[in-house]
Amino acid sequence: MHLNSADIEALDRHPRAALINSLSGFKPANLVGTVDGSGRCNLAIMSSAVHIGAHPPLLGLVIRPGGSERHTLANLLASEVFSVNHVSQSMIEAAHQTSARYPAGTSEFEATGLTPEWWPDFAAPLVAEAPVKLALALRQHQLLDINQTHFVIGEILQIEAPEGCSHEDGSLDLAATGSVALSGLDSYYRPEPVKRMAYAKPGLPPRELAADSGAAP
Amino acid sequence: MHLNSADIEALDRHPRAALINSLSGFKPANLVGTVDGSGRCNLAIMSSAVHIGAHPPLLGLVIRPGGSERHTLANLLASEVFSVNHVSQSMIEAAHQTSARYPAGTSEFEATGLTPEWWPDFAAPLVAEAPVKLALALRQHQLLDINQTHFVIGEILQIEAPEGCSHEDGSLDLAATGSVALSGLDSYYRPEPVKRMAYAKPGLPPRELAADSGAAP
Repeated sequence: MHLNSADIEALDRHPRAALINSLSGFKPANLVGTVDGSGRCNLAIMSSAVHIGAHPPLLGLVIRPGGSERHTLANLLASEVFSVNHVSQSMIEAAHQTSARYPAGTSEFEATGLTPEWWPDFAAPLVAEAPVKLALALRQHQLLDINQTHFVIGEILQIEAPEGCSHEDGSLDLAATGSVALSGLDSYYRPEPVKRMAYAKPGLPPRELAADSGAAP
Repeated sequence: MHLNSADIEALDRHPRAALINSLSGFKPANLVGTVDGSGRCNLAIMSSAVHIGAHPPLLGLVIRPGGSERHTLANLLASEVFSVNHVSQSMIEAAHQTSARYPAGTSEFEATGLTPEWWPDFAAPLVAEAPVKLALALRQHQLLDINQTHFVIGEILQIEAPEGCSHEDGSLDLAATGSVALSGLDSYYRPEPVKRMAYAKPGLPPRELAADSGAAP
């Protein structure tokens, strides 16, 4: 299949959205938790989390203003805090259901049965069932002129992850945490480890790491 | 394991980088192809591709200026075109090896054995071995003040993907294309399909799609 710009433009809206959404490759599946000025919780599944940097620890989110994520955007801009929570296999149905367009007064926690968890000194709800939970503070927000989506960058203030789910180099073992991946708008995957590769150097052949060994980052 | 800001700051540089890199969840594994003003090719593995929008079809990349991606950034800013190519399981070693810090005069295609493929009217090399290939034109570039990384948005001009690897709704079936996922800096995964979920609506319970059925986006 080979499509050029005219072919892409000629696609109907729904197949085009489905196709383009799948082109970047596998995506992370995260639930973003926020709270509004009246203390009402919101929870939205998002597949747009992207690593921005490690020092300071920064994570970005691309947020569409018109979608089911619109309450999340309003809440995090007002409160300047949000949580990012990994989706595990047993959470897929409830996590996906947060993408329904509930009215602003409805908590997706109540609607889906997921449990809000509160941490001291942090004003946004986390998801009790999530294997990996991050508490973030808003650090940068901008409107992307090109298509009126929003790009939000948060600093990771707190991290909670299960014991015994780290590689020797300090990274989380996402197969051990049970985190899932997404593609497109609706397809959930459980990634099976294939290879861990050693730090690459010019002139040396690619080398696979032994299981559980640490890699120099 | 629960870490706060002081705990994160107290980590050594390498374990901190490895940990923070793994927190966003699973990431796509893509090879980004560019060419410099002398026609020399560059190829770099990147895990930061993010869907920006479907109409126009836009894809973003977060690029660190000091890393092995630095030639990619210089090339795509000068030529205003780049390719994004999915990594499949048989390409992992070669794809990972592109992260070695080769000098600017070295083509990572030659160094790793991957094959440049050229398309009419498109000035950047694609990767012949890749199951999914995208040709993009640079549409927006900005420096993220917060940590001096670059955020680049390209418009997808051409798409090539294998026949028979699409869901009924038009999205690519990334298990069928054989695309792999990444976590952290060095861990490659083959995602196994778990569930496809129907379009979520308030008041209706979450519903799983039958195999190969299409979903309204």
